[in-house]
Amino acid sequence: MKRIGVFTSGGDAPGMNAAIRAVVRQAHALGVEVIGIRRGYAGMIQGEMVPLGVRDVANIIQRGGTILLTARSQEFLTKEGRAKAYAKLQAAGIEGLVAIGGDGTFRGALCLVEEHGMPVVGVPGTIDNDLYGTDYTIGFDTAVNTALEAIDRIRDTAASHERVFFIEVMGRNAGFIALDVGLAGGAEVIAVPEEPVDPKAVAEVLEASQRRGKKSSIVVVAEGAYPGGAEGLLAAIQEHLQVEARVTVLGHIQRGGSPTAKDRILASRLGAAAVEALVGGASGVMVGEVEGEVDLTPLKEAVERRKDINRALLRLSQVLAL
Amino acid sequence: MKRIGVFTSGGDAPGMNAAIRAVVRQAHALGVEVIGIRRGYAGMIQGEMVPLGVRDVANIIQRGGTILLTARSQEFLTKEGRAKAYAKLQAAGIEGLVAIGGDGTFRGALCLVEEHGMPVVGVPGTIDNDLYGTDYTIGFDTAVNTALEAIDRIRDTAASHERVFFIEVMGRNAGFIALDVGLAGGAEVIAVPEEPVDPKAVAEVLEASQRRGKKSSIVVVAEGAYPGGAEGLLAAIQEHLQVEARVTVLGHIQRGGSPTAKDRILASRLGAAAVEALVGGASGVMVGEVEGEVDLTPLKEAVERRKDINRALLRLSQVLAL
Amino acid sequence: MKRIGVFTSGGDAPGMNAAIRAVVRQAHALGVEVIGIRRGYAGMIQGEMVPLGVRDVANIIQRGGTILLTARSQEFLTKEGRAKAYAKLQAAGIEGLVAIGGDGTFRGALCLVEEHGMPVVGVPGTIDNDLYGTDYTIGFDTAVNTALEAIDRIRDTAASHERVFFIEVMGRNAGFIALDVGLAGGAEVIAVPEEPVDPKAVAEVLEASQRRGKKSSIVVVAEGAYPGGAEGLLAAIQEHLQVEARVTVLGHIQRGGSPTAKDRILASRLGAAAVEALVGGASGVMVGEVEGEVDLTPLKEAVERRKDINRALLRLSQVLAL
Amino acid sequence: MKRIGVFTSGGDAPGMNAAIRAVVRQAHALGVEVIGIRRGYAGMIQGEMVPLGVRDVANIIQRGGTILLTARSQEFLTKEGRAKAYAKLQAAGIEGLVAIGGDGTFRGALCLVEEHGMPVVGVPGTIDNDLYGTDYTIGFDTAVNTALEAIDRIRDTAASHERVFFIEVMGRNAGFIALDVGLAGGAEVIAVPEEPVDPKAVAEVLEASQRRGKKSSIVVVAEGAYPGGAEGLLAAIQEHLQVEARVTVLGHIQRGGSPTAKDRILASRLGAAAVEALVGGASGVMVGEVEGEVDLTPLKEAVERRKDINRALLRLSQVLAL
Repeated sequence: MKRIGVFTSGGDAPGMNAAIRAVVRQAHALGVEVIGIRRGYAGMIQGEMVPLGVRDVANIIQRGGTILLTARSQEFLTKEGRAKAYAKLQAAGIEGLVAIGGDGTFRGALCLVEEHGMPVVGVPGTIDNDLYGTDYTIGFDTAVNTALEAIDRIRDTAASHERVFFIEVMGRNAGFIALDVGLAGGAEVIAVPEEPVDPKAVAEVLEASQRRGKKSSIVVVAEGAYPGGAEGLLAAIQEHLQVEARVTVLGHIQRGGSPTAKDRILASRLGAAAVEALVGGASGVMVGEVEGEVDLTPLKEAVERRKDINRALLRLSQVLAL
Repeated sequence: MKRIGVFTSGGDAPGMNAAIRAVVRQAHALGVEVIGIRRGYAGMIQGEMVPLGVRDVANIIQRGGTILLTARSQEFLTKEGRAKAYAKLQAAGIEGLVAIGGDGTFRGALCLVEEHGMPVVGVPGTIDNDLYGTDYTIGFDTAVNTALEAIDRIRDTAASHERVFFIEVMGRNAGFIALDVGLAGGAEVIAVPEEPVDPKAVAEVLEASQRRGKKSSIVVVAEGAYPGGAEGLLAAIQEHLQVEARVTVLGHIQRGGSPTAKDRILASRLGAAAVEALVGGASGVMVGEVEGEVDLTPLKEAVERRKDINRALLRLSQVLAL
Repeated sequence: MKRIGVFTSGGDAPGMNAAIRAVVRQAHALGVEVIGIRRGYAGMIQGEMVPLGVRDVANIIQRGGTILLTARSQEFLTKEGRAKAYAKLQAAGIEGLVAIGGDGTFRGALCLVEEHGMPVVGVPGTIDNDLYGTDYTIGFDTAVNTALEAIDRIRDTAASHERVFFIEVMGRNAGFIALDVGLAGGAEVIAVPEEPVDPKAVAEVLEASQRRGKKSSIVVVAEGAYPGGAEGLLAAIQEHLQVEARVTVLGHIQRGGSPTAKDRILASRLGAAAVEALVGGASGVMVGEVEGEVDLTPLKEAVERRKDINRALLRLSQVLAL
Repeated sequence: MKRIGVFTSGGDAPGMNAAIRAVVRQAHALGVEVIGIRRGYAGMIQGEMVPLGVRDVANIIQRGGTILLTARSQEFLTKEGRAKAYAKLQAAGIEGLVAIGGDGTFRGALCLVEEHGMPVVGVPGTIDNDLYGTDYTIGFDTAVNTALEAIDRIRDTAASHERVFFIEVMGRNAGFIALDVGLAGGAEVIAVPEEPVDPKAVAEVLEASQRRGKKSSIVVVAEGAYPGGAEGLLAAIQEHLQVEARVTVLGHIQRGGSPTAKDRILASRLGAAAVEALVGGASGVMVGEVEGEVDLTPLKEAVERRKDINRALLRLSQVLAL
């Protein structure tokens, strides 16, 4: 393999730049050229490509977002679109791809593998941590710490006003962020999509907590844990609630910012491993970190199998939020 | 004056604790005792009081929120409520008050001065910076920097996805936060309550910016700048807009967190000055910092006169957001 | 077991408070009382004890340092001192201990177990991550991120002035902090105690890097990697170096600050697990997290066996720092 | 004036990039071209110049350091060196200069004005805040907050170990950083170059504080306040001191990082004002902000007159550090 392409796709995640840097420099060390493809599959179809040398990725390890940009592409969802993309890759002499992103990215990559025989290795870059085959995805640790910092701030107000705050964090289908943020933030209640949420039970927890003398409480709600998110859950509880409550939706601040050490290291490790795997002949797989070791998982499994949250931690959070 | 009371009221603001610390220690240095009144006017009516010695305010200069708590009181809005509060103050031997808060706090304080002759000196503690008689209020600098940090994060995503973000910051009647955050955050448009907001003009600015090659933009909107805030403004523009846009409401994260150096210094200075003024016989006034010097302003003026935003900075932001 | 004691000892680490909170609340959930022992073994000898209820540990999960304080005790190093300490524990009705700290703490704990049969379970709380039996110690993740933030700042200056910076991080006997910080910070060279450091080789790496066009570089040096630390290493290299170089010793800022999500979760998990183990009859063991699961390791092993750094990551850092 | 040059020189300061951005965009708005001169006077002599368009300064307002780099130049200290530099400026068609830096930068600028009649307007960019003619210099607010954050971290350890910490901050000739950081950090003692430091008096303050029950203390020392800095001061006191004390030198972390809102706004304002002044015919002056308004001061005065620290704040810090 003489030349590979790298791109980011889907929602941006802190650490994507560190992964790009690792791909470029590991490839260089193996004598392989790297072409950066801009704006994900949309740019692939348009042939938006730029050679990436080792100095082009200097001083980006600490930056949020992605220097290669990202976009969603309707056209790539069609067979014709993908054929166009493949033609551009061939024209550029690209013999293999490193795809950095989440499950949408990997579904697209699988099509390239299956329809055109293009070798692709995936790198899990998404704040949601909802990919099977890796204990953590790149961006998750940063998102959790950003959300936690926000909760620490809100707690100042919650405590000063003796109020309950319902804080909505990202996670439409998965409660990873909510669970870690809730446990680390000392939340009274953590609502995740993986477990049924009973508004009456939530209200009872909050009231019991008030009776024990806890004047302010934090409820962390994953977007997809309840219809309408945090706002919806509060509306369903309002009448049972004796205390004043407020809602804050953290939103897009969770996506950005300089990556944590953990995300930079994970991205460095997986970016380099992806190049090694690709050059070594692997395709249709995702690199991940499992119990501290780099591991390969078929993209199909990464996307289709479900990684569960740690339910023991969810129970622990209830014990500790006395 | 042998004994004074101190309390915080209204929305909490970072630096309130630094102000309490300064009040207690400056009073101690002058041989005056300090009683902390908890939960603002609500606690005053209930007689929730606690003596504050110099060690009781140790290690709080860096904490957000307020150790004295804050609350809103319906009862204090009535003459009877205020009479009850005054009786409690008398019973506790309190001869003067330092009131830390915003305009609601000061309106209440004025009633105590006028109806009961209780000496009160106000300290401007609110993130909104909307008080006449001080260049900055305690908490404003921290709120601006917190919002700015959030915008820096969102810009990573805006740039990576080439999107426009509408970010709503606090400020129902005043655009101070929006202006500073927008200028410091490199916002394309800053919408403040002090100036009419024309959706069509906003759309034109954004389109012109896209034509010049700027792919992502930030629009900062003060809560009260447009009906419905950022969401409302985007809805009014949507049809004219060629690019994808998202809304983020920063909300309560702007209130909390450890105060900046500037807020701690301002709080220290004004807290100490309030005690000196009170002990020196002042009443019905607010201490403020004007052009670097401590100044006294009648509470009535502080509340009723309007402090304007710096319109030259608003124009500058338009020049610089090319 | 009706009543247990908890204490922190040795250098403070972010997350110790989260561990104390977990110990108190998990014990409460099991119907066991908790006594906080202040100032480590020194306070144990003096009988400085205070009952800890669930509300006493409210709002501390996010605080750095330790509310129980810590100290070093010469007296406890003697048999007589330990007998005194044991007598105080008996007098207070304490039937078991949770010891939060590093290897010095655990050596002391082992003596209590062996000489007096006092049941003790250890919780690994130290920023150094140098304990066998746990993948990470409480405080390590925070220390790494704090040091990384400092390096990101210094890189601004390094890049602007085109200089080399030698940055010393904590780690007298172990290179865990240096390795993670160096890899995440994009350091050109990482000097750790686990590998011989050849000044001439370091100089060559830096010069080769300059020849490749990299104008500024970061060298991360663990305290114990070279005689005299970063200062010593630079002195040994100076004459071979063509560029201007500066030294910064990060020092104590690495110990403090609000713990990261990861440290709070680890502390919560291990604090709770320690109580469960102790109440379940365990003694002379340390709770740790190994490959994501809670595990018990004899204190003797935790202290005597050596946990190695990940040498693959060290080599990766050399590939990526092109 | 059709074309101007802009450069940064001396120690880098957070906000320099925001100033460069303002210079470029304000010039553009006035129809004036901007040439960026790299590496300060050294690059000027070498003719390292690059045209700066409005998009070249996009997305830099939040970055620390300086995209134009900075350097020290021995050659520019000679008349010949300056003549060479002037020739390069002429060759490039540069009719005026905006010089961003501190007093060394301005001394150099004055020579260009006096020897060659080159119009120059200075912008105060230095973390030290030691320039006459502006209440604050660009970078000062960020440096103070960075140092304060470090002190907040160290206080966790100081409190947990009941120790005294001597923390050295930047400031060889001026105590601005030390004063603000010390006051905001609740320091027991603040040692500045502007006031004589008596070790015995410092020891007495610390002992009195211990007697009052304050177990841990922070002493903030400006580099130039005492021979040998913090280390020197502690050595001079050691024998009088009953408690354990440690030294931390904050060093270069104070220079870097993303600028605060205040520094970005100040930089935006002064960068734009410098262009307006230059185009309007001003030369040999520095733009500054005095009592909230933009003001011009002769470079000679800016460099030679001494701006004093606020001694009232120094006394206040002693009252509040009870």
